[in-house]
Amino acid sequence: MSPHPSFKPADEALIAELTAVAGANLSTALAVREHHARGESHHPAGLPDVVVFPDSNEDVQAIVSACAKHRCPVVAFGAGSSLEGHVNAVHGGVSVDLTRMNRILRVSADDLDATVQAGVTRKQFDKHLRSTGLIFHLDPGADATLGGMAATRASGTTAVRYGTMRDAVLGLKVVLADGRLITTGGRARKSSSGYDLTRLFVGSEGTLGVITELTVRLHGRPEAVAAATCHFPDIESAVRTVITTIQLGIPVARIELLDEVQVEAVNRFSHLSYPVFPTLFFEFHGLSERDVTEQAELVGEIAAEYGGAAFERAVTPEARALLWQARHDAYYAALAMRPGSRGWTTDACVPISRLAECIVETKRDIAASHLVAALVGHVGDGNFHMIFPVNPDAPDDIVEAERLSERLAERAISMGGTCTGEHGVGLGKKKYLSREHGEGLDVMREIKNALDPLGILNPGKML
Amino acid sequence: MSPHPSFKPADEALIAELTAVAGANLSTALAVREHHARGESHHPAGLPDVVVFPDSNEDVQAIVSACAKHRCPVVAFGAGSSLEGHVNAVHGGVSVDLTRMNRILRVSADDLDATVQAGVTRKQFDKHLRSTGLIFHLDPGADATLGGMAATRASGTTAVRYGTMRDAVLGLKVVLADGRLITTGGRARKSSSGYDLTRLFVGSEGTLGVITELTVRLHGRPEAVAAATCHFPDIESAVRTVITTIQLGIPVARIELLDEVQVEAVNRFSHLSYPVFPTLFFEFHGLSERDVTEQAELVGEIAAEYGGAAFERAVTPEARALLWQARHDAYYAALAMRPGSRGWTTDACVPISRLAECIVETKRDIAASHLVAALVGHVGDGNFHMIFPVNPDAPDDIVEAERLSERLAERAISMGGTCTGEHGVGLGKKKYLSREHGEGLDVMREIKNALDPLGILNPGKML
Repeated sequence: MSPHPSFKPADEALIAELTAVAGANLSTALAVREHHARGESHHPAGLPDVVVFPDSNEDVQAIVSACAKHRCPVVAFGAGSSLEGHVNAVHGGVSVDLTRMNRILRVSADDLDATVQAGVTRKQFDKHLRSTGLIFHLDPGADATLGGMAATRASGTTAVRYGTMRDAVLGLKVVLADGRLITTGGRARKSSSGYDLTRLFVGSEGTLGVITELTVRLHGRPEAVAAATCHFPDIESAVRTVITTIQLGIPVARIELLDEVQVEAVNRFSHLSYPVFPTLFFEFHGLSERDVTEQAELVGEIAAEYGGAAFERAVTPEARALLWQARHDAYYAALAMRPGSRGWTTDACVPISRLAECIVETKRDIAASHLVAALVGHVGDGNFHMIFPVNPDAPDDIVEAERLSERLAERAISMGGTCTGEHGVGLGKKKYLSREHGEGLDVMREIKNALDPLGILNPGKML
Repeated sequence: MSPHPSFKPADEALIAELTAVAGANLSTALAVREHHARGESHHPAGLPDVVVFPDSNEDVQAIVSACAKHRCPVVAFGAGSSLEGHVNAVHGGVSVDLTRMNRILRVSADDLDATVQAGVTRKQFDKHLRSTGLIFHLDPGADATLGGMAATRASGTTAVRYGTMRDAVLGLKVVLADGRLITTGGRARKSSSGYDLTRLFVGSEGTLGVITELTVRLHGRPEAVAAATCHFPDIESAVRTVITTIQLGIPVARIELLDEVQVEAVNRFSHLSYPVFPTLFFEFHGLSERDVTEQAELVGEIAAEYGGAAFERAVTPEARALLWQARHDAYYAALAMRPGSRGWTTDACVPISRLAECIVETKRDIAASHLVAALVGHVGDGNFHMIFPVNPDAPDDIVEAERLSERLAERAISMGGTCTGEHGVGLGKKKYLSREHGEGLDVMREIKNALDPLGILNPGKML
């Protein structure tokens, strides 16, 4: 990928400086660079000139300082699970792979918090916490790094109860564009002390700094857990059930919608036999069996009022695992509808009062198209994904997926929502930001220019 | 107050322009200016040159644009309940009183959100919502405006369960230093779309823009409510009870600590007879009586383990009202310990594992001082206030309160906490920010310079 006119590629002088920092933890091998040229998305790859694997905050500082001196782009890289091209080095430069910085530095049961390096992955963290009785609830699906999750303001199935990375991150260490290391936030549960830099860096997608450490909130593992499924005659009834559940303050831990297309795909893929209707998957966390039973019973009553059928509880861990396996396999099940396809995923999020309308209009668009798509949604938050299995080599597929995605993004924005609830902007959603933020986008650019005047941090993304 | 060398006072030309905007909603009368020269704090007053009372976003835009043209300071003013001198016009200029902008623009029961103008007060909002079955939980004590609460990132007794203004605000309308009006955030429950401008303006204390509208999250009013009190042999036991309660995930809605000094003051002031020990006040919100009973029983068991005595539930609304009235009167009860005094209040917030230690050391400092102080704390968040009744005309009192506050702020910061959990920085906490944020403070200044290059927005505060 050719460098931006104002950027320079990583030349021999820069690579020598980076080698002085990283020693053997640096590679210019094509295979390594290709591995760092893209995430999991359909977006065109962007080949970095070199990949470095820092071990410490100081390494990252030295790397970014060297890049600043040489006007060379810096692209932070974690697990590579990005869905919007965040990690693609579209202007070349240095890919900073943080996966060697994967130490869990501190866990406090009293404070329900932990400090980890940015390269710690979700599953690694969960495994570490298992023996402590604590849990980090955020689950974006992929085994992402926590640094990457913070950079994209990720969330997932449990956000309806436990929030997103915006809520989970108490503080950060960030290397700025000129190599300074700052600490944002702190370990206090709340603070009114100065601008909320933590929240500014969360979701900034590597364009304002490179996140190297995170302090995050934990929870005690719930004493009791139950799950349930229920199918509905139509999307509206399912969404009405969700709205009433949340209005009543029932603290559902997960509340996921699969449309009839997705249910059928899941049935085929996972050899299950859910009735082929829009279906809600619930999870309840509580203080006791009595507590989760009360929650489930209340939700069952609400669902029945809206025509929900076969409200079925999965009480044993095995039954719950089966249920959530089906939900987690939804993406692959959708792809299996068209063997050999790749996934193209939308991420609209709207006020829940508009959710049914947004989904129904979108499904109408898809019905009139040559593509198929399956829906999975974090409906408690008004967030849903249409998964299009597309043939990446068929221009017709790509053009049509693009057209449908654009209609959906514009619809979501016109309903007071957002083009991206949890995947981030990266390359894929850039074109909608002006529509969504108006002059607010100019303010974002002013902040970007103030903190990264050379524009070396993840250029070509978001703004 | 003399203007800053680089600022100009509101001269005749500017006042003529402001009059063209605001008509009769403008005053240069001394009494009006004096009313806008300070909040409720001990900080020195700062007299504005003129006070304007805009009716609309467009009015605010025109006012700020005129001030920018004339290089004149702009200080936003709400209910005047600030405790850190945020509203004091220390460089003169224009006080923009937003209390005429007090319309509730929209309430959605389905989305559990509402949009209000910045001048809406907490009690006005609560009254409006009462018939809807919805509630806005944040309660900072004072009948503040929602704009002011957002500007200082306020919280209060319910933050342990429902969060702070950081969590409650979904989106804002903000007039920038050059008069542009931007909309931040949106009505979606979550978003990964661009920099989190909403959280940047929440807590920015009028230094980055003037907040004119807010979209905030609501909750359904709880189906069942219960309260309880329990006293403890010492602070440590009370804090241990809190830690265990939160670890177990018991969703307490309020959990407040009064030390023995405060309990005695409350007893005298409100003619009550609580045993004079460190005492926790609890409130439980739940889905049913059974639910809140389960929460209260669990907490009662935990308290007993740590030596808590007389765990007493207040089930009737009347008993609860009495209990919370005592808590809300704590501030006045503390002042009544020294008739004729004014309050000097600290606001440290620390990781809860350090809370008992922080409190005990602080009480030791106070015991060795000529001042007295009573403690009220939002202990679920690690946040507590020492209320010093001081004689504002006694230099000894002021110097000593300042010295003790400084020791506490430094102690909190050295424990990984913050000098201000919920009152904000304003004039009073400026001197601690460098210690607390290090080079992060430079980043705040860079952002300030980018968004307000003339420095006209609330000069002399925070940074």
